[in-house]
Amino acid sequence: MPEKRIAITMGDPAGIGPEIILKTLNCGDFDPRRIVLIANTEIMSMYSDKLGLKLPSEQEIIDIPFDVSKITPRVESAQSGELSYLALEKACAMANSGQVNAIVTAPLSKNAINKAGYKFSGQTEILEKLTGKQGKNKAEMLFVAGDFKVMLLTRHIPFADVSKSLNKEKIIESVRVLHTSLREDFKIEHPKIALCGLNPHAGEGGLIGSEEITVLIPAMNELKELGIDIEGAFPADMLFAKAARAYLNGQKQPYDCYLACYHDQGLIPIKSLAVDKTVNTTIGLPVIRTSPAHGTAFDIAGSGKADFNSMCEAVKLAFELSGF
Amino acid sequence: MPEKRIAITMGDPAGIGPEIILKTLNCGDFDPRRIVLIANTEIMSMYSDKLGLKLPSEQEIIDIPFDVSKITPRVESAQSGELSYLALEKACAMANSGQVNAIVTAPLSKNAINKAGYKFSGQTEILEKLTGKQGKNKAEMLFVAGDFKVMLLTRHIPFADVSKSLNKEKIIESVRVLHTSLREDFKIEHPKIALCGLNPHAGEGGLIGSEEITVLIPAMNELKELGIDIEGAFPADMLFAKAARAYLNGQKQPYDCYLACYHDQGLIPIKSLAVDKTVNTTIGLPVIRTSPAHGTAFDIAGSGKADFNSMCEAVKLAFELSGF
Repeated sequence: MPEKRIAITMGDPAGIGPEIILKTLNCGDFDPRRIVLIANTEIMSMYSDKLGLKLPSEQEIIDIPFDVSKITPRVESAQSGELSYLALEKACAMANSGQVNAIVTAPLSKNAINKAGYKFSGQTEILEKLTGKQGKNKAEMLFVAGDFKVMLLTRHIPFADVSKSLNKEKIIESVRVLHTSLREDFKIEHPKIALCGLNPHAGEGGLIGSEEITVLIPAMNELKELGIDIEGAFPADMLFAKAARAYLNGQKQPYDCYLACYHDQGLIPIKSLAVDKTVNTTIGLPVIRTSPAHGTAFDIAGSGKADFNSMCEAVKLAFELSGF
Repeated sequence: MPEKRIAITMGDPAGIGPEIILKTLNCGDFDPRRIVLIANTEIMSMYSDKLGLKLPSEQEIIDIPFDVSKITPRVESAQSGELSYLALEKACAMANSGQVNAIVTAPLSKNAINKAGYKFSGQTEILEKLTGKQGKNKAEMLFVAGDFKVMLLTRHIPFADVSKSLNKEKIIESVRVLHTSLREDFKIEHPKIALCGLNPHAGEGGLIGSEEITVLIPAMNELKELGIDIEGAFPADMLFAKAARAYLNGQKQPYDCYLACYHDQGLIPIKSLAVDKTVNTTIGLPVIRTSPAHGTAFDIAGSGKADFNSMCEAVKLAFELSGF
């Protein structure tokens, strides 16, 4: 048995998780002996039959027993949420006991998880709790497409709450987590980080909003004093135009990571440039975690239409960050 | 003398306006007899000498007399603001009296304009006033890169003011202006419009913010009743990923225009995909107005480094929308 292994969790059984897992495990790019699939076997068989795609014969699968009679493709439910949670819980237990080095999670539904009685705003927050990090270091969401990386300073919160959620201490903590991960996980010796402004034109010196002056630049200055190479706050449209030019021309990114103040500011450019290649990575956890950057896509579950590129990239990145 | 003509205004004389105008007028794509340049001749000569680029011999130039002794490349000032305002004022007067069909404006500086005592938040607002539209129909900012078009529902306002600035009546009015322009200026018989959500994942049915439910969808429903083909509110990252895929593959856009709730939501994707090709168009005015989508770039003025692609596209679009 090879030493380093990754776990793949099935995600919501009513979504495209099982399908993109079957496609990824059959793409021929990965050694099945280095992967543990954590899923309900009845659900996997159901999708195998539907899609005419079997699991590779050497594939180890850890069964999550469950009454699946009420689970139907495309129908989000408390049951589908419960089962997706249980798979994730098992993966975290295996990571905590050192049986796997990384977890790749297929998409689950926040809504279904909540219906099942687990009150979390997303998979990242569940992982924070189940790997024992809650209340200590914060986990951070990093999106990766090749060397184009974007970290979110705020995540799944209402737009109207973003401004008041940005504060100097939290930004400093988040960027320190990022800096450590860029050095230790991504093996970048001297990471160079760029910070987006919040306001149009990064506020134009206070003419159009003041968070750059009151929060972002002070946080940046303290980070510089800590020896972190960070620049900004740049007008986000121009900063990402530069990143995009490098990406589209196959050149090295001018920065190792871009800090977006909020969800759409970071996700719009990376998904516009690389929707099929973008991997959602959680950094700052004791375990490496990657995930495709898309959702459950309930509307096409079971149809065979799901694109598995992002899942495949997520598995590749999990292996890479585990030091394979 | 050809009948239809466009005016080009010099923009801020301390910025890259004169340089990109000289480059555009020398690129060979345009008939100089169809263009009137509105600029200070001393400033144009100064940049001509600096850059070794003369105006085409047939180029008509309308001089804006000014004491230019205090104007220096790269130095924003009340004088540079004053002169850029005067050129714009002249262009509007010519448009109002029917001497030109369209105005292409080189970039000016809001800051310099304000230093000169003109209290406007941008060139669009000046044009609204000088072409007599203030207080009547609102002008709208539309960004155009080929058939990829993005309109902003809010413009140069602080991020923290965006949520409260979105209201149903204003959105309905703005989209009606857009719909008319797409039909009349862009000659699209049945325009198809897509609306971005404000919140991450367009709010996930109210889980992450409620403006989709309280403002955006009600506005959209009323617009549908008016016979306008509009869909949404979509998660902005996924919507622009779709637009980007079409743009990068050279396919027709699935929508004729994307409505962004705020500046960066619309500008990040279009500048990421097409920074050199993006034209800022003002619709809803009695005159057609286009402009490059970049700013004054004071830091490189006079160096010869300014990219004139966006200016060139702005002139092309002005001719196209004038019915050439």
